[in-house]
Amino acid sequence: MPSYRAPVEDVSFLLNDVFGIEKYGNLPGFSDLSPDMLEAILSEGAKLCEEVLAPLNKSGDTEGCTRHADGSVTTPKGFKAAYDAYTGGGWVGLSAEPEYGGQGLPYTLGAIINEFSSAANMAFSMYPGLTMGAIAALNTHAAPEIKQTYLPKMIEGTWTGTMNLTEPHCGTDLGLIKAKAVPVGDGSYRITGTKIFISAGEHDLAENIIHLVLARIEGAPEGVRGISLFVVPKFLVNADGSLGARNPVSCGSIEHKMGIHGNSTCVINHDSAIGWLVGQENKGLNAMFVMMNEARLGVAIQGLAQSEVAYQNAVTYAKDRLQGRSLTGVKEPTKAADPIIVHPDVRRTLLSIRAFNEAARALVLWTALKSDVAHRSEDPKARQEADDHLGLMTPVLKGVLTDCGFDNAVKAQQMFGGHGYVEEWGMSQFVRDARIAMIYEGANGIQALDLVGRKLPRDGGRAISSFFGEVQGFIKANEGDEAMKPFLAALGRSLGHLQQATMWFMQNAMMKPDNAGAGSTDYMHLFGLVSLGYMWALQLKAVSEKLEAGANGDAERLETKRVLASFFAERMLPETGAQLARISSGADTIMALAADRF
Amino acid sequence: MPSYRAPVEDVSFLLNDVFGIEKYGNLPGFSDLSPDMLEAILSEGAKLCEEVLAPLNKSGDTEGCTRHADGSVTTPKGFKAAYDAYTGGGWVGLSAEPEYGGQGLPYTLGAIINEFSSAANMAFSMYPGLTMGAIAALNTHAAPEIKQTYLPKMIEGTWTGTMNLTEPHCGTDLGLIKAKAVPVGDGSYRITGTKIFISAGEHDLAENIIHLVLARIEGAPEGVRGISLFVVPKFLVNADGSLGARNPVSCGSIEHKMGIHGNSTCVINHDSAIGWLVGQENKGLNAMFVMMNEARLGVAIQGLAQSEVAYQNAVTYAKDRLQGRSLTGVKEPTKAADPIIVHPDVRRTLLSIRAFNEAARALVLWTALKSDVAHRSEDPKARQEADDHLGLMTPVLKGVLTDCGFDNAVKAQQMFGGHGYVEEWGMSQFVRDARIAMIYEGANGIQALDLVGRKLPRDGGRAISSFFGEVQGFIKANEGDEAMKPFLAALGRSLGHLQQATMWFMQNAMMKPDNAGAGSTDYMHLFGLVSLGYMWALQLKAVSEKLEAGANGDAERLETKRVLASFFAERMLPETGAQLARISSGADTIMALAADRF
Repeated sequence: MPSYRAPVEDVSFLLNDVFGIEKYGNLPGFSDLSPDMLEAILSEGAKLCEEVLAPLNKSGDTEGCTRHADGSVTTPKGFKAAYDAYTGGGWVGLSAEPEYGGQGLPYTLGAIINEFSSAANMAFSMYPGLTMGAIAALNTHAAPEIKQTYLPKMIEGTWTGTMNLTEPHCGTDLGLIKAKAVPVGDGSYRITGTKIFISAGEHDLAENIIHLVLARIEGAPEGVRGISLFVVPKFLVNADGSLGARNPVSCGSIEHKMGIHGNSTCVINHDSAIGWLVGQENKGLNAMFVMMNEARLGVAIQGLAQSEVAYQNAVTYAKDRLQGRSLTGVKEPTKAADPIIVHPDVRRTLLSIRAFNEAARALVLWTALKSDVAHRSEDPKARQEADDHLGLMTPVLKGVLTDCGFDNAVKAQQMFGGHGYVEEWGMSQFVRDARIAMIYEGANGIQALDLVGRKLPRDGGRAISSFFGEVQGFIKANEGDEAMKPFLAALGRSLGHLQQATMWFMQNAMMKPDNAGAGSTDYMHLFGLVSLGYMWALQLKAVSEKLEAGANGDAERLETKRVLASFFAERMLPETGAQLARISSGADTIMALAADRF
Repeated sequence: MPSYRAPVEDVSFLLNDVFGIEKYGNLPGFSDLSPDMLEAILSEGAKLCEEVLAPLNKSGDTEGCTRHADGSVTTPKGFKAAYDAYTGGGWVGLSAEPEYGGQGLPYTLGAIINEFSSAANMAFSMYPGLTMGAIAALNTHAAPEIKQTYLPKMIEGTWTGTMNLTEPHCGTDLGLIKAKAVPVGDGSYRITGTKIFISAGEHDLAENIIHLVLARIEGAPEGVRGISLFVVPKFLVNADGSLGARNPVSCGSIEHKMGIHGNSTCVINHDSAIGWLVGQENKGLNAMFVMMNEARLGVAIQGLAQSEVAYQNAVTYAKDRLQGRSLTGVKEPTKAADPIIVHPDVRRTLLSIRAFNEAARALVLWTALKSDVAHRSEDPKARQEADDHLGLMTPVLKGVLTDCGFDNAVKAQQMFGGHGYVEEWGMSQFVRDARIAMIYEGANGIQALDLVGRKLPRDGGRAISSFFGEVQGFIKANEGDEAMKPFLAALGRSLGHLQQATMWFMQNAMMKPDNAGAGSTDYMHLFGLVSLGYMWALQLKAVSEKLEAGANGDAERLETKRVLASFFAERMLPETGAQLARISSGADTIMALAADRF
């Protein structure tokens, strides 16, 4: 059975040595977080994920969820007890508002626990994960009485949340939504329509399920300007907070999916279900976008998480599996064969995964810290800069971390040969689970378009200019450091490719937007490589500083970081030249064929 | 439900206009093949695959195979009738020896039908596919009486074949095989051991199953020099050809796999099973390699096949699915949204699959024709050149076509958004089925090592020199053609990268073989891109010639070929520069870490 060990050491290195979490002490939530407390939270979270969630991952995949004739859904064996342990530890409300019972700790901490729990059991982690997204949306947009009614129970995990967006004919293009909301006159609405692909839509883990539903109020304008957000509880809530009547919102069926079998993905039928408006009429997308940005970062983390757990298991296998001999002579003469980790191609594969993982983790933390600044700082300039960063990086993280997370799960599976293809070893599950992250919360092609079409030009390119300035400034400030020199040279070349690609869009896509669409995915990945490269640069600097200060027995781990950074420069950054070439080839060939010639 | 249409038109273009099949008329099998007969065979094969095999693909995946308590295995509903239709049409023996009932037609034709049937139903096509491999091995190595006993029934499909190589502790490294063979004294052996991952190992399609088994004769030398090949029938065969006693070779269990559920992948237990030697004692690997080279080409074709069928279904979806509006303004004002094929990123994705497919198909046919020359020509020089080509290209085809085939199935699935992730639409199955092709018949890392470590240096680099000479000669001979100029320039650059990479190995890997191992996978894919690029060059030339000669209503299809070639040059060939950079970075970083630092 596959195993998992949460990367607590690496997280500590990033928080303390790379990003200097102590610098954030003036923000609410951070000030309460002493180094001891941080360590205690990380190790408690790690323990829960390693010992409670991970052992249920494979069995949850095999058993899946079961829908009964009455529309109720049973989750796999053990999920309910695990969920109780999860909520009992207060993990759902880790970074939620203290006013409603949350612990108010940094979002960054939530992101870390999200990585651990998604790696341990992605299907399970989606139940609390969607709840956290729903909490964020309600907290930002709902009226006080709605918050008071729902948030405390959701934050303690007694109730869970969902997002009801997709309909059979409408996924990306939410303007096509047909679900209807009819005002009753008492402030409530009757909502009717079918929603599909609703994760955690129905299950037996919680007493109530709080659906956030996009629907169109009768007479609303067509398209996205006529969509409103509603809160639709499975059970209505009485004035005293107790559960009342069953609302006519029900699970019509559960999907048979490639993966995440432990999560119930439902068709949800609203048959004149009672709901209340969240935020303003016809401004539902704005309210939902709060949830979607958090959700997109959460999905990016799922990509990293599957890559990490797949890596760990591939390493174990590569050290255990005896097969063939090293190209440079026998390494284990007393054994029938050498372990396959002696082979350069096996090492290359493993290093390519790990060099991604440790940079992607840094990118997540860097961005999560910006999210904390954007939401908690009192300095308007700092908030704005952090918000620029968040807007720019969210599609990059979502698209790149999930594409690479899936590719890496496939690579790790490959290390197992035929044993990777049979379900017994669990590597197929990592691949199948990782696959969905490229699709949901906005398919990655949409992320790329969001980046190129919206985030780049926004505010006259303020966010991208600031990113370029920061990376360039770092390279300049550190080019005298001999240990970092080759890495910074490679990063500088790739940054140059990204800048050229950006310039190419400015010159060629304004008048001809297809040129942006044709290059969007390559641009997103080019951006991803430069961002990951910058994360390696920051880590290299921290390594140098720690080594200078005396490594305290950490030298091996720090030297490993240097090897990984070199690998990244030698084997991963060269891709940016090819990406630039593809982007600059433009849209002419791509648009040349009539649709019926495909 | 997904659908499939066999690409008969494209095959005809390649055979007639690109490779000039009429030039092969002097070879046995080809001389019988009039253009009318060729067309009839292609269209009959296409019909069988489209109408009989394809409709069983999804149901076969859902139902899978069932092992019963007595060790018998039932294939999915409809497979038996489909198998009878397949054998009834004489397809198993299409290119087999006429002496034993085969039709003696070109192997090339078999490769084409293999693409059609693998695309229609990969799990099904493996039953006859493995039989064809076993026929080839017996035909080349077995004694006349063994051939007489088994080949006629196998060629008519009444009996099927398998390859019994892998054991639990031993996959790639066949030297570790433990299965034992004890001579009985009457020419037969008693074979004992457990084999795993045996495709088509037990089923209800045929009257008998003929296992080809690698085992070690008592007292044989250690390692690969002590392995022999045996034929072990499920039912012993009486002197009159009727079936006799049940041989103690049985299915212990069937694997639960990620895909190819319709094919029974068995643990096969040999409990003192009776077998006969094929070929010489201790030369089992040589005999098995005949089967493996054919099998590797067959697996390469599976990669192409999944890519093709996934492409076809993605195109249908992209034309049907209405979502969002074109970046350049509304294209379908009477509809709620435009079909997603208006989006450049969707087209880019589709074109990247198709630009691969139509070049990969050419590469398969080019190589299959060489295989026919190698096995059927009477001219020793032509045979040797063809054999050089086969040896060199087999690992490239296997590794590159299956890696890309899988990637393309994933890309095609992505076009469907959430609908791609649910099993209902069938896209997940293409991904799950395609995944195995990267693993079996030698995992792709092994193919890369075979290419770099064995095939490149063989005979002083004769095969690779001849390949370089041919491509360079073509570029030179056609550089005056204005229509081909930009393409040939791009191909020339990529060929240069391949030549530099080859030179780099010559200079750096002789003394330090890890440098070859570290670059092997990139080199294989670099080789693949140049080979596929050359296939586009040949097609472009044929297009020019046809257009000059008057296109006869074919102009649109020929212009489409030109667009695909441009796409290949602009979007796919740029990768070769990055590959060269990675290869030249060598093994130092990759080998730097001790195993316990991973």
